[in-house]
Amino acid sequence: QWMMLDWKPRRSDMLIDPFGIGRIVQDGLVFRQNFLIRSYEIGADRTASIETLMNHLQETAINHCRSAGLLGDGFGSTPEMVKKNLIWVVTRMQVVVDRYPTWGDVVQVDTWVSASGKNGMRRDWLVSDSETGEVLTRASSVWVMMNKVTRRLSKIPEEVRGEIEPYFMNTDPVVAEDSRKLVKLDDGTADYVRKGLTPRWSDLDVNQHVNNVKYIGWILESAPLPILESHELSSMTLEYRRECGRDSVLQSLTAVSDSGVGDLVNLGEVECQHLLRLEEGAEIVRGRTEWRPKHAKSFGDSIA
Amino acid sequence: QWMMLDWKPRRSDMLIDPFGIGRIVQDGLVFRQNFLIRSYEIGADRTASIETLMNHLQETAINHCRSAGLLGDGFGSTPEMVKKNLIWVVTRMQVVVDRYPTWGDVVQVDTWVSASGKNGMRRDWLVSDSETGEVLTRASSVWVMMNKVTRRLSKIPEEVRGEIEPYFMNTDPVVAEDSRKLVKLDDGTADYVRKGLTPRWSDLDVNQHVNNVKYIGWILESAPLPILESHELSSMTLEYRRECGRDSVLQSLTAVSDSGVGDLVNLGEVECQHLLRLEEGAEIVRGRTEWRPKHAKSFGDSIA
Repeated sequence: QWMMLDWKPRRSDMLIDPFGIGRIVQDGLVFRQNFLIRSYEIGADRTASIETLMNHLQETAINHCRSAGLLGDGFGSTPEMVKKNLIWVVTRMQVVVDRYPTWGDVVQVDTWVSASGKNGMRRDWLVSDSETGEVLTRASSVWVMMNKVTRRLSKIPEEVRGEIEPYFMNTDPVVAEDSRKLVKLDDGTADYVRKGLTPRWSDLDVNQHVNNVKYIGWILESAPLPILESHELSSMTLEYRRECGRDSVLQSLTAVSDSGVGDLVNLGEVECQHLLRLEEGAEIVRGRTEWRPKHAKSFGDSIA
Repeated sequence: QWMMLDWKPRRSDMLIDPFGIGRIVQDGLVFRQNFLIRSYEIGADRTASIETLMNHLQETAINHCRSAGLLGDGFGSTPEMVKKNLIWVVTRMQVVVDRYPTWGDVVQVDTWVSASGKNGMRRDWLVSDSETGEVLTRASSVWVMMNKVTRRLSKIPEEVRGEIEPYFMNTDPVVAEDSRKLVKLDDGTADYVRKGLTPRWSDLDVNQHVNNVKYIGWILESAPLPILESHELSSMTLEYRRECGRDSVLQSLTAVSDSGVGDLVNLGEVECQHLLRLEEGAEIVRGRTEWRPKHAKSFGDSIA
């Protein structure tokens, strides 16, 4: 009395993970989860939005911790971290998108962690087309510990190091670090400023803070529409500098490199500088984005 | 070299649907799809947001059409509708939420269609906990046809009726129709007004229109924070009156029934009236929401 949809060929390894909660592969150090791109995860271009991709990265990071038994509080902290009131905060994120998946595609997200300096942890992600293996997205991030009560950064205590070090891989970052300094924009140097941005109730996470992924939407709020229409985000570097709470009022600043927007639609690659700041001035996120003309890459399916 | 997560007991019927794209059940008239609630689909209360629920309803509606072979253009129109430039537009939506699922829960969404008057289609949804069968959400909606070019409503042409009628169930709506008239709010009758709301680029769907689900976020933008904090949405009736495009500037108006917000947190059920309108005055959505105090229902798991 029921029929299966005959939509995409099913691979046998999908059957291992019917719930879509992922599993550990490669000697226990890499966590892998598949995501079917849903209708509400795509935008005007019929491709997954950058926020969707970032959500998938977040989801795999948390499920990785969970699968390793390192989820003390249900949201990313290890048992020892919970005892010491420590949480992870992301300080840096680099993302390179080679191709955006479309509705119905199944993407495979691999993630793993390694040491980053003495008191940080790096988390990398490799996103590929689950059918062809083509790499779609690479991302690399740096995390440090913060005391939940004092909101000050903390060294990694030995007890926590003991919990997490066995999971560290000894590999280079999947995205080479872009060491160019991120510019601090101000009203004089920004080409576009959006003011009065406030979190919606639904933007808040369980700590009543704005989720990292939401920042990206705000950053793009000040990116000029002609770029959003004619170009797609090809890479992004973000430096997270301060938390943002539910009562924050934000401003989003963007500077477009080299030339005016009028010419942009005719140009090739475009680079933008971004700043998300509180109305009173404190910096929340500095960023740099790179954009390539849409359809610059040859897609398997046409986009209509 | 891999291990399964031992998180929730797996039911054998999950294995039928490893991709999470659903299947037809009950004599071919009901479409069923399971959703695992992901970390980024929950809000400050650790429960799925109303937008998440609405996204799941949208996704099952489209996948139902797809599985019935009625997807002419890839986004909900049948082949005959595509020929005639017709699209579906929702005119009314009623949702009743008994309990919000939490992160890691698997919900089962059943959906089916029936006739609604001479020229409409009703689509119903029943959302339940896939483990216990407990009903979480019921929703009922009315759809009519619009000419994509003229943007005028259309009767259902016979050729289209022939395509869709075999799928109609002959049942009562899963939510009894709330026949109380929705009030038209204005600046005088609204208690709260949020102005200058504009679509983000990522709010647009493939037709460059704002997706229905996004309206709900805007409607709640003018709901007072004390209600959002102390209450949860228990039911919602929306009347969609006009489309909203990417250049629209909107205003969100809310009136709280009976008493001031100061007392609300101590009260039981609260009812609100809503209006989403263009800055120049045209109505986009009228709505009514009902709210119950949080934790009024006894939850299986505490919410910490």
